[in-house]
Amino acid sequence: MQESRPALAVDIGGTKLAVGLVEPAGRVLTWSQVPTPAGLDAEQLWRTLDALITNTLDGAEVGPDELAGCGCGCGGPMDWPSGVVSPLNIPAWRGFPLRSRLSERLPGITVRVHNDAICLVAGEHWRGAGRGRDNVLGVVVSTGVGGGLVLDGRLVAGASGNAGHIGHVVVDPDTGPECACGGRGCAEAIARGPALVTWAQAEGWRPDQKDATARELADDGALGHPVALAAMRRAGRALGIAIASATVLCDLEVVSVGGGLSQAGPLLFDPLEEFLRAHARLDYARTVSVVPAALGQSAGLVGAAALIFAADRYWAAD
Amino acid sequence: MQESRPALAVDIGGTKLAVGLVEPAGRVLTWSQVPTPAGLDAEQLWRTLDALITNTLDGAEVGPDELAGCGCGCGGPMDWPSGVVSPLNIPAWRGFPLRSRLSERLPGITVRVHNDAICLVAGEHWRGAGRGRDNVLGVVVSTGVGGGLVLDGRLVAGASGNAGHIGHVVVDPDTGPECACGGRGCAEAIARGPALVTWAQAEGWRPDQKDATARELADDGALGHPVALAAMRRAGRALGIAIASATVLCDLEVVSVGGGLSQAGPLLFDPLEEFLRAHARLDYARTVSVVPAALGQSAGLVGAAALIFAADRYWAAD
Repeated sequence: MQESRPALAVDIGGTKLAVGLVEPAGRVLTWSQVPTPAGLDAEQLWRTLDALITNTLDGAEVGPDELAGCGCGCGGPMDWPSGVVSPLNIPAWRGFPLRSRLSERLPGITVRVHNDAICLVAGEHWRGAGRGRDNVLGVVVSTGVGGGLVLDGRLVAGASGNAGHIGHVVVDPDTGPECACGGRGCAEAIARGPALVTWAQAEGWRPDQKDATARELADDGALGHPVALAAMRRAGRALGIAIASATVLCDLEVVSVGGGLSQAGPLLFDPLEEFLRAHARLDYARTVSVVPAALGQSAGLVGAAALIFAADRYWAAD
Repeated sequence: MQESRPALAVDIGGTKLAVGLVEPAGRVLTWSQVPTPAGLDAEQLWRTLDALITNTLDGAEVGPDELAGCGCGCGGPMDWPSGVVSPLNIPAWRGFPLRSRLSERLPGITVRVHNDAICLVAGEHWRGAGRGRDNVLGVVVSTGVGGGLVLDGRLVAGASGNAGHIGHVVVDPDTGPECACGGRGCAEAIARGPALVTWAQAEGWRPDQKDATARELADDGALGHPVALAAMRRAGRALGIAIASATVLCDLEVVSVGGGLSQAGPLLFDPLEEFLRAHARLDYARTVSVVPAALGQSAGLVGAAALIFAADRYWAAD
């Protein structure tokens, strides 16, 4: 029987909470979001999400029993597939049993929770830039650098649901900056937005502006500011080398790059391409293409729905 | 019906040609090998292999129609799954249609050809060091550095059958040696046996011995020769960093390391562990274990048989 019911899709990040209804074909029917509240405790934050779910269902006049399921992306790290989450950017939730709380909220409904970066690549593979390709890496460049991996047509989970996390591929093992993970020279330590801002400020860009952002850095790069340009090139180099390593190791066809920093366009993508092509030289690796993520803001919700509607490809657990 | 017929397993490398019969449970019943002849043309080399197949079948009194199939590992690169091979170390075969020639030789029998490094990891996952684990990288360190990748319990093919090729993961993008692939600082450019020998000779180890080998280098390391020890540490560092990148990207549980250079034991594995642990710092990556390949010389034949007996896990094509 063809599924006709919508899925409830939930996207939880440090910046916003979003809840929507997504059709089996991947179209977002309705969605609403709120800024992620700060200063709340775990239960207060849950009640915010709970109310957003209620509003979304009531607004669409859809009862929980009319749902195909609930898919949810949440910032990592998490224990997967149990969906016990401790999002780096949401301090209120430490060991919060998100999947079971959603299951209690939606009795009788299938609930699946995955890493938000993995939902993004699931969305891009199912309905976006990776559609029709079997070997796709999705990269999200923002406050951190995350990702997800589709190989041989299926989302790869790995041992703990973390496969695709390109942020800690090593780019400069000796001379690179220390990384929050404890290592040195990881792609994330160089290319994450806040690291670029810190580097640029040390080089003289807006040195006294305490709340300077990567978006401002990219904007100044577009205006030709030499330090801002050098910072974007630095990010593009780190990502290009890490993507080259991922391409030869995983025999990729397409790499989709999204997240806030990807809005910088050619300032980021041009050096990324330059360093990728310098290092991905084997015949099979030369044909990889790098594309901007296609789904924009709704990718997380579409990918969360893919955990329900295309579980054979995007949900390796239970 | 339980399969009881053996598979014909073929392992083709620059050093030897091996043909064996392997039971459905993975035990090698009988096998024979010859040094890979040099100076032959494509057809003469084929006839050598053909005779080896005939001898193996006749010796065991097994007819082609009593085989479960034929699995074959061959040095890369190759076009996969068509099995048209151009092994780097076998110049006589350039675009040689190995899979179809084997099919003509064994009419009515399923024939499957894969990269020899991929067969090694299939063997290690099916019956060796990776048994019972779902996320395994197999690394082969020898004249080159190759590998294969099992994720979520299945051998990953990738876009062209090359997934797992860890040799060209980038370790030293700026300061590393040029690589035969055209890039710079690939793990293989540093850790392949001949590169280690060249480096050690430039540092004063056996500088005038034209045919010095990596085995002699490892032997001298075991005797405490400082340049030989430094060379093995150099290889261990490059492999450790590349394996760290692969571990975080693919969320691995086990890395099996085989090939000639792995015989150096702790001289290689100790620095490999040191650099792996320095860079694989995320919680999920810390638990990875590195183990020597367990199957030894027969791994290639066992893995070739796995293409037949466990095709659901090790053969993603047709």
